[in-house]
Amino acid sequence: MTEQQQNPSHAPSRVSRRYVLGAAGAAGLIAGGAGGAFGAAQLKEEPTALASVGSSSVPFYGNRQGGITTPAQARGHLVAFDLAAGAGRKGAAALLKRWSRAAEEMTAGRVPPGDNQIALDAGPSSLTVTFGFGRSFFAKTALAKQLPDALAPLPDFPSDELVAAHSNGDLWVQIGADDALVAFHALRVIQKEAGDGAARLRWQMNGFNRTPGATAEPRTARNLMGQVDGTDNPKQTDATFNERVFVPSSGSPEWMAGGSYAVVRRIRMLLDAWDDLSLERQEKVIGRRKSDGAPLSAGKGGTETTPVDLDKRDADGLPAIAADAHIRVAKPESNSGAAMLRRTFSYHDGFRDDGAPDAGLLFVAWQADPLKGFVPVQRKLDGGDGLSRFLRHESSGLFAVPGGAGKGEYVGQRLLES
Amino acid sequence: MTEQQQNPSHAPSRVSRRYVLGAAGAAGLIAGGAGGAFGAAQLKEEPTALASVGSSSVPFYGNRQGGITTPAQARGHLVAFDLAAGAGRKGAAALLKRWSRAAEEMTAGRVPPGDNQIALDAGPSSLTVTFGFGRSFFAKTALAKQLPDALAPLPDFPSDELVAAHSNGDLWVQIGADDALVAFHALRVIQKEAGDGAARLRWQMNGFNRTPGATAEPRTARNLMGQVDGTDNPKQTDATFNERVFVPSSGSPEWMAGGSYAVVRRIRMLLDAWDDLSLERQEKVIGRRKSDGAPLSAGKGGTETTPVDLDKRDADGLPAIAADAHIRVAKPESNSGAAMLRRTFSYHDGFRDDGAPDAGLLFVAWQADPLKGFVPVQRKLDGGDGLSRFLRHESSGLFAVPGGAGKGEYVGQRLLES
Repeated sequence: MTEQQQNPSHAPSRVSRRYVLGAAGAAGLIAGGAGGAFGAAQLKEEPTALASVGSSSVPFYGNRQGGITTPAQARGHLVAFDLAAGAGRKGAAALLKRWSRAAEEMTAGRVPPGDNQIALDAGPSSLTVTFGFGRSFFAKTALAKQLPDALAPLPDFPSDELVAAHSNGDLWVQIGADDALVAFHALRVIQKEAGDGAARLRWQMNGFNRTPGATAEPRTARNLMGQVDGTDNPKQTDATFNERVFVPSSGSPEWMAGGSYAVVRRIRMLLDAWDDLSLERQEKVIGRRKSDGAPLSAGKGGTETTPVDLDKRDADGLPAIAADAHIRVAKPESNSGAAMLRRTFSYHDGFRDDGAPDAGLLFVAWQADPLKGFVPVQRKLDGGDGLSRFLRHESSGLFAVPGGAGKGEYVGQRLLES
Repeated sequence: MTEQQQNPSHAPSRVSRRYVLGAAGAAGLIAGGAGGAFGAAQLKEEPTALASVGSSSVPFYGNRQGGITTPAQARGHLVAFDLAAGAGRKGAAALLKRWSRAAEEMTAGRVPPGDNQIALDAGPSSLTVTFGFGRSFFAKTALAKQLPDALAPLPDFPSDELVAAHSNGDLWVQIGADDALVAFHALRVIQKEAGDGAARLRWQMNGFNRTPGATAEPRTARNLMGQVDGTDNPKQTDATFNERVFVPSSGSPEWMAGGSYAVVRRIRMLLDAWDDLSLERQEKVIGRRKSDGAPLSAGKGGTETTPVDLDKRDADGLPAIAADAHIRVAKPESNSGAAMLRRTFSYHDGFRDDGAPDAGLLFVAWQADPLKGFVPVQRKLDGGDGLSRFLRHESSGLFAVPGGAGKGEYVGQRLLES
């Protein structure tokens, strides 16, 4: 399900080609947007006006929050806040109300009075603002009874090099937009609404993805290692997609119905060491051809979507996909069917004192239950993945992201008024 | 002149709408690109395919380097290097050769063997790579006789809060592209080509601008204060544009013919203090209406392009544009006709320890002579500009950017082989 489907009453001012291609058959529902009477077939044939990057919008209201199944935007901000002492449940509820109202306005491209106007001229640019609660939120708001079991602290993984000040937090906000000024504007507004004694900034990270239109058609992302990244993501068309990613309406606690759990990791890449490997070595570490993402089990043929054959042997009788290849260790079949929806941003914060780039992946993984998603996969990767030698997990967070708000509600209302 | 005009032999694979609109009458020369037989009128009427963001290219070879009159891209990296001890003129020439060859390949969207493939899938995305020399370069390469007078150190401005380690440098590279991965790839390649003992990284900054297509049509940029920024820039159609921005072929030293001088300043904005001002106060500080950039002398009417009337009085007999308004102090008429081409990126490097955003402007100003461009303007702004209370100049550099390379040449060859 796309957000558009959940919100048929929302008429985006213009539907971008990207959204149509990502909507997997939903075109009938969204082609009636206010922007014109395009038929779906025509949208696929005709190039979309450049301005559609700006005018594309993602509804704020719905059963689920935006920014989960929304295609990852060109610019992202991840930011965590801690509640101010004494804010309590009342202060938190007031904050979520302000945040929800601001997010509703901004995602629709409206500029309220007194706004700093940074986003002016552009449209909503597919802005999403997604709110989550960390484990520490519940005691501070006297809501310990509502603490989900799924928010149990992540285990300590042996290779972790986490910085506590850049990890966890009472509240988490994920901002994404296809325009950097629109995203920065949203970050400023969210921070300002928090800044009246309700919450203080804990950490903040900036990320990016490919610009819409930089490739000839929507493609699986590449990360800063140059690798096609995200091929094995569950697809929204999979029969099990919803149960893997979203908490069902019958789930527990009740306020998490339609919600999801976000695991956030800042993963620095040791790019100098990685680039020193030969292409052949890099491909063995991953298990896929670098140029197009085809699995090495496909030999010289295949494409990114060719099914992986983990049993395939090469001419020398050795496994075509090595025992410690990333895709073997990470694949759902190797992990009792575990799956999570990875929705990442790359980051680059300049250079470290040793001259190496401070760059890598802002990994955000969505799942109905972290103990069936991220945790078992990372347990295996942490020890057995050839790729892990080139990665450093430096920050970590786990957040309960409730379902979306209906009109007149605010995100988290079912928790805060429980 | 646009780069395209200087390089009629270059056939971009597809010409984007943005370029056509920026080309000011040059459409006839560029419409014959390999991408198809579009007429200029048709290009202006028809929206361009999203993929044109990726496939737009800026020629590397030409009388002038790219990245000066090229419309500022969505993503930018500014990076300075210092020559390694003992590299000397020979090492510097070899480095500029490698850099030029790599820039030629990358700006054409080609991927050489052994590449790390980060930019793959995307086109050149209007990539430009621009090279300059700092004052300290000349002694280290025994080229002191070729040191331009214009590279005299910038004066100390009283308000400057410069960090020496983030200022100046022997070599400067400006990278811009409309896709963040294409820009990052170029940065990695440039750094790698320097990394074999020829030069070491001195400082590096990341910036951004609006995404192509986020606005309905190309607009003057907004900065992170929310202000329309760049209205008073000289236009390429101005009769005096070339003489203000570029060193003439009769200029001195000879190797700078077709070149320009870049003043680079990292200008942090005190955004919290700025946002605390009322809209009316902000507009008085600038001298323009915030929403659309119209000068306050136009009263409630006017547009961004309405000529500024510095003598205009308001109903109370006070100057409509205050004595310390930014546009009064900065305007060419207030500075003996001084003009520079400002081509900026915004930056946001997270938050400072005090919770304020570490954000502002990567100011890059291009001029034929800094003593007639940046220096006299900044002298006046530094003391008399109401806006300067909200700005902190934290880094500074001045670089001689030589003319472009012809086919088979490398950038700086006329200097290094003089």
